[in-house]
Amino acid sequence: MVPKIKIIPLGGLGEIGKNMTVVEYMNDIIIIDAGMGFPDESMYGVDVVYPDISYLKANASKVRGLILTHGHEDHIGAVPYLLKQIDCPVYTMALTAALLELKLEEHDMLYTTQIFTKKAGSVFRLGCFTIEFINVNHSIPDTVALAITTPLGVIVHTADFKFDVTPVAGQRIDIARFGELGKEGVLLLMSDSTNVEKPGHSDPEMKVGESFDKLFTGCSKRIIITTFASNVHRLQQIINVAAEHGRKVAVTGRSMENIMRVCSVIGYMDLPEGVLMGIDEISSLPKNKQVIISTGSQGESMSALHRMAFSEHKQIQIDSGDRIIISASAIPGNENMITRVIDALYRQGAEVIYDRHTDLHVSGHAPQEDLKMMLALVRPKFFVPVHGEYRMLVKHAELAKQMGVSPNNILIADIGDVIEINKKDIWTEQKVQAGEVLLDGGFGEVGTVVLNDRHRLATDGMLVIVMPLIAESHDYLGDPEIVTRGFIYVKDSEKLIEEMKQVAVAAVETCKEQEISDLSAIKSKVKSSVATFLFKKTKCSPIVLPVIFEV
Amino acid sequence: MVPKIKIIPLGGLGEIGKNMTVVEYMNDIIIIDAGMGFPDESMYGVDVVYPDISYLKANASKVRGLILTHGHEDHIGAVPYLLKQIDCPVYTMALTAALLELKLEEHDMLYTTQIFTKKAGSVFRLGCFTIEFINVNHSIPDTVALAITTPLGVIVHTADFKFDVTPVAGQRIDIARFGELGKEGVLLLMSDSTNVEKPGHSDPEMKVGESFDKLFTGCSKRIIITTFASNVHRLQQIINVAAEHGRKVAVTGRSMENIMRVCSVIGYMDLPEGVLMGIDEISSLPKNKQVIISTGSQGESMSALHRMAFSEHKQIQIDSGDRIIISASAIPGNENMITRVIDALYRQGAEVIYDRHTDLHVSGHAPQEDLKMMLALVRPKFFVPVHGEYRMLVKHAELAKQMGVSPNNILIADIGDVIEINKKDIWTEQKVQAGEVLLDGGFGEVGTVVLNDRHRLATDGMLVIVMPLIAESHDYLGDPEIVTRGFIYVKDSEKLIEEMKQVAVAAVETCKEQEISDLSAIKSKVKSSVATFLFKKTKCSPIVLPVIFEV
Repeated sequence: MVPKIKIIPLGGLGEIGKNMTVVEYMNDIIIIDAGMGFPDESMYGVDVVYPDISYLKANASKVRGLILTHGHEDHIGAVPYLLKQIDCPVYTMALTAALLELKLEEHDMLYTTQIFTKKAGSVFRLGCFTIEFINVNHSIPDTVALAITTPLGVIVHTADFKFDVTPVAGQRIDIARFGELGKEGVLLLMSDSTNVEKPGHSDPEMKVGESFDKLFTGCSKRIIITTFASNVHRLQQIINVAAEHGRKVAVTGRSMENIMRVCSVIGYMDLPEGVLMGIDEISSLPKNKQVIISTGSQGESMSALHRMAFSEHKQIQIDSGDRIIISASAIPGNENMITRVIDALYRQGAEVIYDRHTDLHVSGHAPQEDLKMMLALVRPKFFVPVHGEYRMLVKHAELAKQMGVSPNNILIADIGDVIEINKKDIWTEQKVQAGEVLLDGGFGEVGTVVLNDRHRLATDGMLVIVMPLIAESHDYLGDPEIVTRGFIYVKDSEKLIEEMKQVAVAAVETCKEQEISDLSAIKSKVKSSVATFLFKKTKCSPIVLPVIFEV
Repeated sequence: MVPKIKIIPLGGLGEIGKNMTVVEYMNDIIIIDAGMGFPDESMYGVDVVYPDISYLKANASKVRGLILTHGHEDHIGAVPYLLKQIDCPVYTMALTAALLELKLEEHDMLYTTQIFTKKAGSVFRLGCFTIEFINVNHSIPDTVALAITTPLGVIVHTADFKFDVTPVAGQRIDIARFGELGKEGVLLLMSDSTNVEKPGHSDPEMKVGESFDKLFTGCSKRIIITTFASNVHRLQQIINVAAEHGRKVAVTGRSMENIMRVCSVIGYMDLPEGVLMGIDEISSLPKNKQVIISTGSQGESMSALHRMAFSEHKQIQIDSGDRIIISASAIPGNENMITRVIDALYRQGAEVIYDRHTDLHVSGHAPQEDLKMMLALVRPKFFVPVHGEYRMLVKHAELAKQMGVSPNNILIADIGDVIEINKKDIWTEQKVQAGEVLLDGGFGEVGTVVLNDRHRLATDGMLVIVMPLIAESHDYLGDPEIVTRGFIYVKDSEKLIEEMKQVAVAAVETCKEQEISDLSAIKSKVKSSVATFLFKKTKCSPIVLPVIFEV
């Protein structure tokens, strides 16, 4: 058998989120990222979505390690779930490690997990693979691309990235190293497709700091800024601008407090003496000396900003003395949640600055020109676009063609596809099990049956018909009892309830006439009679549960 | 009592949709628009939202007429609902009347409704009010603003509008008439706030036609275009461009077929000889001679485009010979539905053009500079921004201040507010009942109780515990029976079910020990014991329905 590399995406292709990629050669597997996904609006009651890791469970003995490119939830959120089933060490950078540790602590896994903290430029071996961390810029510090030397050649995985040659802190993306790798020859490039629909170059993070400066200048109000908690450089810029304008800073919201704690422990934030205050203390200062950094940039219902907007925040009451800055863009699907919060803040009298036409946010993902630059530097033989919905992968593939990658050497894959590469070809024939595992609050997996029932319950509600029958004779004992939830308001629907009872009784009598005495047959007759009657009458299909038994 | 005008918005303020405004003086009421709203994602199973019209029912004898400014659903969708409860004549333009007639036919109300069709420039009396229709531009033809002469002065209601001095067909907005009214003196302006967050001027509709021309030129594929069915001028442009490029046109989707029929009856579309074909016939032509106009620009699940994307359309199979153009922007909240359809079309091999950076759509609503122009022309004494969420009303009020309206003369209102105006002042003190009436598919109103139950059912499901007890002794007859839906998958949860039964039995036994014999007390004991147990075990709160009775 000719040796070949297998690349198996288990998440992040044809979707945004739950990024996870398997790289396999002979008896060695490494895993790149273990992210969680977010339930869509049809996944009633589901809190978390994990990638299906059946393939890894079946090949657990081959797994040499898990590499985390950065600390966002869609890259590390599924680590506890994975490590409970696959025992392997974790390799990552300091901030990612610190954020992961918070998560492992919650799962009581902190002392049973081996984490090796590396630096940008580190090179280490896992099985037959040699892995090198390469610094890139993204909306969280300590993001690294990977150069993986395999027996057949070098694989470059960009992770999430953008080009920012003037980062707020930390190193700029190691452009030279990508160029060197390109000159030496790269077998395969896997590159971030999130922003492929956006033309042009990346905007530098510093641009946002300039906007903050303008909004602070001459402002006599309290300033409340919300952004993504993990955007440490954004937080740093807020603190810098606040200090320059003689203001103090307090933070509110659990994830914001966590990130501040983590960053101060590992020394990732530059805090001018005395600039930070507790949220309880800061309110004693005049309004024009206060800055509050808050969670809730996506309008999340339990976030600090949401609580402020709806007068449920313990320490902060919003009024016309507040300027609120939303330094984030809406993740698709969250638009209405955010505008509801903005409207509520306006109703409290606050001024809200969220305009997309001012530079209050820049993305952490490379748009078209950055993606082309990466392709120009790495000049890969084979190309697989990753991290994106299907249309994005298609567009990224088109960019790669423009940049000179041979069309035969570009492969658009789906999760579960086994991408095989030798020195000459790239192809996919086999598929492994892949998909989503849905979890309900700390409890357990939510399967298709339960989810389908929730859909029907949500749309049309349910009703229970209780009919005790006398054993042998199957005469019914008095009136059936009917209980409904989420279907109709019983007090307004007495006539309908009465008719339903008659339909149920008639169904039982029909069974008696036809000498049907099997209880489950009677149940199904009652169920179908009542359901048909209700659909005719109301155009609704509630779940009908007949409780029929002999006494 | 000094005479005053009352303006009572019953919908469309602090929200987008279900526009309806009451204008009242002494014994006369006129109603402007009767629109429907759209259920948000929390309104499980709700199909339609209507404004609460309790105030009108209580004042039905005063109502002199209903005026419809244009034919969009958020302006005419609640007309059947209103007219079933309030008997009054309808006044509107030809296209709006034709669209309303389709709707009335469905409700079997066509021959019992009096519709008076007017022209732009028409003037007519309703009670003490004199109403004048003024032509404006919008994304549907026959949109009119209203100048309402009252005993205290003139009220101008802009309806939905934009400035387009080169409309595709029909008249341009009657700028001169707004200017004359402004010179003569306007007491109150109510103006459309939908696009107040957008800087600059309106783009002309014709710009979209130019984009179409570019996309047709040199294209050898079949072209499928989706847009809003009611955008008649957009449809006209597609037909014009198709004819110029020697292509035939077919339409698919019910609302698209309806609008084409209506427009051809009233002569609102200019159809070059032989350009239209049936959807069954057109497929016999070569691909580069076909244009299909389709519903589904918002990714709606029953639309023609959705069916094409998921291979469920009877006549059309998508492949790599198709160029699909999405000529619409996403209504907030629909983004994910649309991208799911785009992805599915790409998976079929089609090319999809939806890029926001090309001019494939222009809005029908005035942005900031147009709104300022309207304020400059009308120069009202009082100003009330309408048609917008709260933040939009605030921003529109700011624009009015900039344009010289005295801050004391600007009022931001909510639905149900009674806005009172005399010649000197504008104020609001009283409130009338206003809000939303939710309707489930053709059946009836969905109240709060039902909606709250649906939420719990959707999130955590439900379970029924059936426990027949022996009369008098209250010993239980065998094991309790447990039925669940949307909570857990029973086959995977035998242990939990067993424990639940024990908890229920223990609760009944406790009641017996404590000599509690009232059945409803026993039920509530079982319910609370089981619910507490389940929350501890699973962190879920399914609806628990104990069915306990004596035999």
